[in-house]
Amino acid sequence: MRARNKPWADDYLKENKEIVELSPSEYKNKWNTVFKNNNPIHLEIGTGKGQFVAGMAKQYSDVNFVGMELAKSIIVSAVQKVSDSNQENVRLINEDANDLSEFFGENEVEKIYLNFSDPWPKARHAKRRLTFKNFLEQYENILNSNGELILKTDNRGLFEFSLVSFSQYGMILEEVLLDLHDQADPTNIMTEYEEKFSGIGQPIYRCKARFQKK
Amino acid sequence: MRARNKPWADDYLKENKEIVELSPSEYKNKWNTVFKNNNPIHLEIGTGKGQFVAGMAKQYSDVNFVGMELAKSIIVSAVQKVSDSNQENVRLINEDANDLSEFFGENEVEKIYLNFSDPWPKARHAKRRLTFKNFLEQYENILNSNGELILKTDNRGLFEFSLVSFSQYGMILEEVLLDLHDQADPTNIMTEYEEKFSGIGQPIYRCKARFQKK
Repeated sequence: MRARNKPWADDYLKENKEIVELSPSEYKNKWNTVFKNNNPIHLEIGTGKGQFVAGMAKQYSDVNFVGMELAKSIIVSAVQKVSDSNQENVRLINEDANDLSEFFGENEVEKIYLNFSDPWPKARHAKRRLTFKNFLEQYENILNSNGELILKTDNRGLFEFSLVSFSQYGMILEEVLLDLHDQADPTNIMTEYEEKFSGIGQPIYRCKARFQKK
Repeated sequence: MRARNKPWADDYLKENKEIVELSPSEYKNKWNTVFKNNNPIHLEIGTGKGQFVAGMAKQYSDVNFVGMELAKSIIVSAVQKVSDSNQENVRLINEDANDLSEFFGENEVEKIYLNFSDPWPKARHAKRRLTFKNFLEQYENILNSNGELILKTDNRGLFEFSLVSFSQYGMILEEVLLDLHDQADPTNIMTEYEEKFSGIGQPIYRCKARFQKK
């Protein structure tokens, strides 16, 4: 997702410290102190403009959500959305998924959501896909033994790649849906992309997978 | 696939003994004597009217194909097709997939094809789906260590079920295609169903999976 550069973004993030954790590595292994409870932590990687994470936080008030988004000019919209929602169980971090292990300790996370991640369609960019095995290693490390990875996308190539990547890594598929909106899951919270693309009849794919027991 | 009862079918099968093996259990562990060579054996379960198995036999003359079809009134069309093709590397058997282990020995088969299998959409019929775990046990037994299971279907529910079933059984996915005809595999041989449904724009799903090394 690209957006116009926003020179005010830095200041805006700093002004919203109750929502944006500016030094998330300080909270590795102690996110419970940020949320002031021991509820499970769900992480969305690539949180975009925040509709999903804000909607989930409202729907599941006994879960703590962390939304990670690298693009400063986009995360500002998520900050606004979370701020408007008045939910206390969401934090945002303006960081890179490559550094995940700096921010979360072993077993610290219960679910990871990948929503409409960049498909990086060129074969030579396969390593950048968030379901490439190097990322799976990091997810396995931070997810607890009940942990789950949930992928949602409208991109056929990314979905095909991801199913094979999960399987070859040794992950177990728990659910595969090839047309999420046809099958109607009332608990599904839509992202901005999802609203747009399912609105024009594009099938939305979803799968849930877990790592083998540690 | 349903077809009108054909009272002459029994006689027709008996008249085509060079194509139809009437007592396949006699050849368990010795299909090489049927084909008079040691080429690998590929099995299609639910061979229908035989377009796939006849086409594959023509394309891969160094492979022996066995097509299995329970419905007598349908397999007669396959017999006709194989007979017309003059290929010597195909045999047909009019048997039930539930009895697979009676006809093939351990490691005797290199590939198993499931093409447009009955989806048995009702949950209470899940056990009848050819990708239910009881069938996978039989496939694992007869496939050799390089063995592969290749599933092709236009039925979304069957495909979703099968991916999860394979994964939970411990199989490894090697390929997942969610729109086979869009991605153009020039080696793909179409079944009669496939021609019809891909012709009206229905996506055709395919996956290849293997069992973990024995």
